[in-house]
Amino acid sequence: MASGSMGAGAVRHIVMLKLGDKANVGKVAASLGKLGDGIPGVKWNSFSLNTDLGLAEGNYDVALTIEFPDKENYLAYAKHPEHVAAVQSNSSMVVSRAAIQFSLAPKL
Amino acid sequence: MASGSMGAGAVRHIVMLKLGDKANVGKVAASLGKLGDGIPGVKWNSFSLNTDLGLAEGNYDVALTIEFPDKENYLAYAKHPEHVAAVQSNSSMVVSRAAIQFSLAPKL
Repeated sequence: MASGSMGAGAVRHIVMLKLGDKANVGKVAASLGKLGDGIPGVKWNSFSLNTDLGLAEGNYDVALTIEFPDKENYLAYAKHPEHVAAVQSNSSMVVSRAAIQFSLAPKL
Repeated sequence: MASGSMGAGAVRHIVMLKLGDKANVGKVAASLGKLGDGIPGVKWNSFSLNTDLGLAEGNYDVALTIEFPDKENYLAYAKHPEHVAAVQSNSSMVVSRAAIQFSLAPKL
């Protein structure tokens, strides 16, 4: 797991995926999980992959939360071939994608 | 801010909203932010409201992340009139909503 220090510029990236067939949750989670082993040249502080508990109707199925030490590492991640390949390999199983990146105040 | 202890059953709730008009981000964030002052009978460990940095095309605009000590507090929140009223007051400004709840392993 690549890691950097939590500075003033830390960024949290969250992506949520809704799948056409819930049976594919394991496959999609596995392909995203492989990214968590590390991507050359990309630093993050934490990488967590989670699946929905089924407590509400219409929920998304998978959430990936990555905390980067700064915007530059998020941008390097976003365009990295390994990330792009994972997105492409999952695309046929994903019916809806929601993403956001926001800054994280440093933990005092 | 109401708070409970982080037990084995802790749940993270994330909702992301995409707005029809970015000019409404402040209004939507303010109405969700009021929930953060506390809801009678509902406990959470953390409540954070964040807005998108604009680093990627097609992103959602607002993310609300709440960590509940257990499922019961999430379910109490979901159906609470104050939460329902906030959702209704924002609905005309929201074009797309994505939500998920997942369990959080206890922090050792």
